[in-house]
Amino acid sequence: MAEVVVALDGMGGDHAPASPVAGALEAAREGIGILLVGDEPALRAELARQGAEGAGIEVVHAPDVIGSEEEGARAVRAKPDASVSMACRLVGQGRAGAAVSAGNTGATLAAATLHMRRIPGVIRPAIAVTLPAAGGRPVVMLDAGASAEARPEHYPQLALMGRLFARDVLGIAGPRVGLLSIGEEAVKGSEEVLAAHALLRDTPGFAGNVEGRDILARAVDVVVTDGFTGNVVLKTMEGTAGFLLGEVRAAVRSTLPGRVGGMLVRPAMRRMRERIDPDSYGGAVLLGVRGLAVIGHGNSTGRGIANAVRLAARGTRERLVAQFAEALAIEGAETSPAA
Amino acid sequence: MAEVVVALDGMGGDHAPASPVAGALEAAREGIGILLVGDEPALRAELARQGAEGAGIEVVHAPDVIGSEEEGARAVRAKPDASVSMACRLVGQGRAGAAVSAGNTGATLAAATLHMRRIPGVIRPAIAVTLPAAGGRPVVMLDAGASAEARPEHYPQLALMGRLFARDVLGIAGPRVGLLSIGEEAVKGSEEVLAAHALLRDTPGFAGNVEGRDILARAVDVVVTDGFTGNVVLKTMEGTAGFLLGEVRAAVRSTLPGRVGGMLVRPAMRRMRERIDPDSYGGAVLLGVRGLAVIGHGNSTGRGIANAVRLAARGTRERLVAQFAEALAIEGAETSPAA
Repeated sequence: MAEVVVALDGMGGDHAPASPVAGALEAAREGIGILLVGDEPALRAELARQGAEGAGIEVVHAPDVIGSEEEGARAVRAKPDASVSMACRLVGQGRAGAAVSAGNTGATLAAATLHMRRIPGVIRPAIAVTLPAAGGRPVVMLDAGASAEARPEHYPQLALMGRLFARDVLGIAGPRVGLLSIGEEAVKGSEEVLAAHALLRDTPGFAGNVEGRDILARAVDVVVTDGFTGNVVLKTMEGTAGFLLGEVRAAVRSTLPGRVGGMLVRPAMRRMRERIDPDSYGGAVLLGVRGLAVIGHGNSTGRGIANAVRLAARGTRERLVAQFAEALAIEGAETSPAA
Repeated sequence: MAEVVVALDGMGGDHAPASPVAGALEAAREGIGILLVGDEPALRAELARQGAEGAGIEVVHAPDVIGSEEEGARAVRAKPDASVSMACRLVGQGRAGAAVSAGNTGATLAAATLHMRRIPGVIRPAIAVTLPAAGGRPVVMLDAGASAEARPEHYPQLALMGRLFARDVLGIAGPRVGLLSIGEEAVKGSEEVLAAHALLRDTPGFAGNVEGRDILARAVDVVVTDGFTGNVVLKTMEGTAGFLLGEVRAAVRSTLPGRVGGMLVRPAMRRMRERIDPDSYGGAVLLGVRGLAVIGHGNSTGRGIANAVRLAARGTRERLVAQFAEALAIEGAETSPAA
């Protein structure tokens, strides 16, 4: 099979199996090996419908599916043969380097944690999200919600994982790391963040505190925060973007010159929205497990899925897991390995 | 003097004393009494320059000014006769019902806390911000950064203060309160937030958890959160809005039809930006002290200052402080009065 193999949940997301199959075909054409996991008859029918025999795509049957409304962790326990669990299990077995699902986020997290196991030395896995930012370069933020809180000793590992991900997967040379806080001064923030700052101070690439308004301004390449704050920030960005673009649309439609002008600016606006579309970045990534789990947006298109698969393939090719393990072994003396 | 008196820091903000004086004149014309605090010769010269003797405006001399770059709390201790301290002291002395400053936020907070004292029963003051949201109705979020963290027992008071502010100052009937978390289910969130949820469950108007994306969607009227998260959310919104509007502008300018269209949509866009302009809402408000301290944006225009003064006057007129004290006395049995 191909040099790099990605296990793809064929049943995950609002447009499954059409989008996963389209994404699989797009990625397979670039030489990425795909294990397409899910209901075999449905997947084969969709492959045929999209007019491809699927060179480089191997269908792996999984009889169950976890819906987007199910409670993730519970569903993973209840349905051991769900497509997302099977995809993660293939990574655990070494048959694939990474898993991708656009289905239930909680289920993907639970399945990846269960089947991929942590990299030795990693205190706990974290979700990294890649945000479109000023100047066209991405910013990585983690933890975006794998855990609901963090202790100070978790931050140096978040910084390390974020830095390696930015460098090896996103191709950012010498990534700079910022600690999310409520003021740039080292003395600003909660007790947890003050203690985290002290632990981060001498780590590679650390550039000090950043504030909420600095994230998309790309003051740094990697933003570290606890999973509660990271998740709130991510959803606040989504909400603010949705609100503002709605306001822009309403404002433009409110007058006749506005409507005419709106028609003229529409193509430019569409390109802008594509550029900041989460689909472009392939989704959130669970870091710290043996393999990579990429969590695509529920409404991913085929292109979104293909980008998620590319991201997963890049992480596999760049030996991200081995890099983490090596870096942790070296820095092991400084970071506490205790859970 | 007028029925309602507001002490206004004449030296606070990037455009002082021009903006504070312009705001004072605008508010005074509506019958709000103004104690304009700051360097008396400078303020009198600016009043004369703006062609007004300032009916309803009394100038109160304060020899010192705290700059925007100074460390707020330290500066308030070092300069007891700074304009912002004097304005807050006038409230503490009962000469004004509320204070307004567009100067150093930290200094305004420190001066208000020092000179206005807490309302009996209030565990600690909180900053409430009023956000422009969907459907043209405002949403109140608190704490936006008065404290760097919160304990579960602080949340019912945040909810109470936010509810009374929304009802009596913003005129929202029966305001609904949401707890900011990372999932709508009561079991989602950090330990602190889970415990807060349990304490909030039976309080008036409580509507459950909300997520970051729900804030501007106006799922609720009042969002309660700890000061760290609230501050990060507020600045993330500012950063996202700045980033997106910049992207819209760049997209529009990138093509000739886009440039023509951009000229046509400009008036509608300007009205939209005015509608979501922080100046419209008069700024952040420190709640829980005997009086109201309104913290205007540093770059407030005269209109922004006038709106901040109106907000302060409304709070005074609606007897917000007395309302809090009464509500806390009634609910005192349920909330812990311990600091």
